[in-house]
Amino acid sequence: MMVPMPRPTIDDVQAALGRIEPFVHRTPVARCRAIDAWAGRQVHLKCENLQKVGAFKARGAMNAVLLLDDAAAARGVVTHSSGNHAQALAWAARERSVAAHIVMPTNAPAVKRRAVEEYGGIVHDCEPNLESRLARCAEIAATTGGTVIPPYDDDRIIAGQGTMAIELLMQVPDIDAVVVPVGGGGMISGVATVMKALSPDVRVVGAEPRLADDAARSLRSGRIEPHRGDPTATMADGLRTTLGERTFPIIHDLVDEIVLVDEDQIRDALRMVLERTKLVIEPSAAVGVATLGTESLRSLDADRVGVVLCGGNLDLGSLPRLLGTS
Amino acid sequence: MMVPMPRPTIDDVQAALGRIEPFVHRTPVARCRAIDAWAGRQVHLKCENLQKVGAFKARGAMNAVLLLDDAAAARGVVTHSSGNHAQALAWAARERSVAAHIVMPTNAPAVKRRAVEEYGGIVHDCEPNLESRLARCAEIAATTGGTVIPPYDDDRIIAGQGTMAIELLMQVPDIDAVVVPVGGGGMISGVATVMKALSPDVRVVGAEPRLADDAARSLRSGRIEPHRGDPTATMADGLRTTLGERTFPIIHDLVDEIVLVDEDQIRDALRMVLERTKLVIEPSAAVGVATLGTESLRSLDADRVGVVLCGGNLDLGSLPRLLGTS
Repeated sequence: MMVPMPRPTIDDVQAALGRIEPFVHRTPVARCRAIDAWAGRQVHLKCENLQKVGAFKARGAMNAVLLLDDAAAARGVVTHSSGNHAQALAWAARERSVAAHIVMPTNAPAVKRRAVEEYGGIVHDCEPNLESRLARCAEIAATTGGTVIPPYDDDRIIAGQGTMAIELLMQVPDIDAVVVPVGGGGMISGVATVMKALSPDVRVVGAEPRLADDAARSLRSGRIEPHRGDPTATMADGLRTTLGERTFPIIHDLVDEIVLVDEDQIRDALRMVLERTKLVIEPSAAVGVATLGTESLRSLDADRVGVVLCGGNLDLGSLPRLLGTS
Repeated sequence: MMVPMPRPTIDDVQAALGRIEPFVHRTPVARCRAIDAWAGRQVHLKCENLQKVGAFKARGAMNAVLLLDDAAAARGVVTHSSGNHAQALAWAARERSVAAHIVMPTNAPAVKRRAVEEYGGIVHDCEPNLESRLARCAEIAATTGGTVIPPYDDDRIIAGQGTMAIELLMQVPDIDAVVVPVGGGGMISGVATVMKALSPDVRVVGAEPRLADDAARSLRSGRIEPHRGDPTATMADGLRTTLGERTFPIIHDLVDEIVLVDEDQIRDALRMVLERTKLVIEPSAAVGVATLGTESLRSLDADRVGVVLCGGNLDLGSLPRLLGTS
């Protein structure tokens, strides 16, 4: 018989918030009349695009770095990522004067590599495949004695991401539902943990691109499903990962539903947010907003809906392609 | 002997603030560590890009509309503009259930025309030249008995725009200087009126594209100067107008200096704000930020500088051209 591992609790998230508060922003909640009118309800945008490093990933990374004891901290941290987690970990490590080793594939965009280096991270090359990434990561961890901090499938990370939900409940106490984009599931695991503990009537809705719908299928089948097609087909580059061993059971038990959106809905939402709220978001954040136009959300009895704008690291050069104007 | 006309006073601006407060946003002041580091000082960004209709123009237009007596209000308002003032006046008029007649040249972008119509404005065509615009405007005013509300050369407008400076002083009481983009001069006239009355040590700096440097030359010559070249050469499309009879004397007496910036400086500032603050701004707002990199500002003894992000109505389709990436 399998003994279920303990999961992060609301106490872990509360502790994480106290721990990271001196370092991260309590991000504002934005309103926009045009989006309210389109959605037919009050929409409260939790602006993690205005978070440190431009994404919610700063929360989990900071929590994980601060949880290291001094001896571990002296040996540094290690991860493999070419996305926001890489920048977040480099930033968090520097805040504690800890070395951050970031394994990146040789074909990662130069701008991503430069961003990590600007935050003081040490970039290590690997071949552009998962085996090489994992091997290089393990090799560096073995050499340095550093602690591996994965991007989402980690209780320290889940608890850190959940802190945004405590803030949201303080900022909008009478919220009826919250929409959270789902990639590896670290963010929605943390948010659902908070909501079901502090305000269990709040409906927790995952938002996923139809072209990377592994979480929706995993909830239906009851186990972690791989991608069906090529997940890089979705413009939401932050949501191309599949659920993990730590995040899946939490999502399975606590998330009310996963809503899928098509690429044209993501594109329209991206344009609407840029034009109407004057906030820069990345495509993954537009996925959450896009769900507001779906039948699932339209038929939901919820006057006040929170939507996490999970990141703002938009590649401006790709905007014409994303908006279909090039 | 010419008797100088009275100018808008701090009392007029205070009254305007009380008048428009129920309708406009008290816009936030944003900070950004990367911009502080680049500028070498604290930079406080007054976010008029988050104002109603996406630009500070909502303030002056609302003030002018609210100052109409009931009989005048019943006859409507009239202006000629294809920019933010057109949208602002249409919006303000609708807030008071007043008809807004907006004269626009036949070659104005369809998106501008649609925006005015979405705010309930009635668009009237004219030929794309100043004579036709003025003639059509006068004709409509005569026909309707409506009140003409010009975009900047008007005391009601100047007092309305000045309200942002009262807010800024409340939000950052120990500010040392404020940078304000200059087109027709309505905004900087209002801001300077407030600063020199309430906090006279605050240096008031105008920001102007070198390709539309009429205000800088007007201050030197002591009279309103026309453009030297083609003002449409600057990407800062909101700053292509020249000073007016009402704004010039105020600017002449109260503004400390006008700083010029080149197009590449505007472009770099636009990119920096989009990438680092995650705020959408239009090129005219980037002109103010760009001055922070000039020798004039670098040599200024000012720990805390306010910069007005005057608008956020960026044409996303033009971004690659603006950033030089197309």
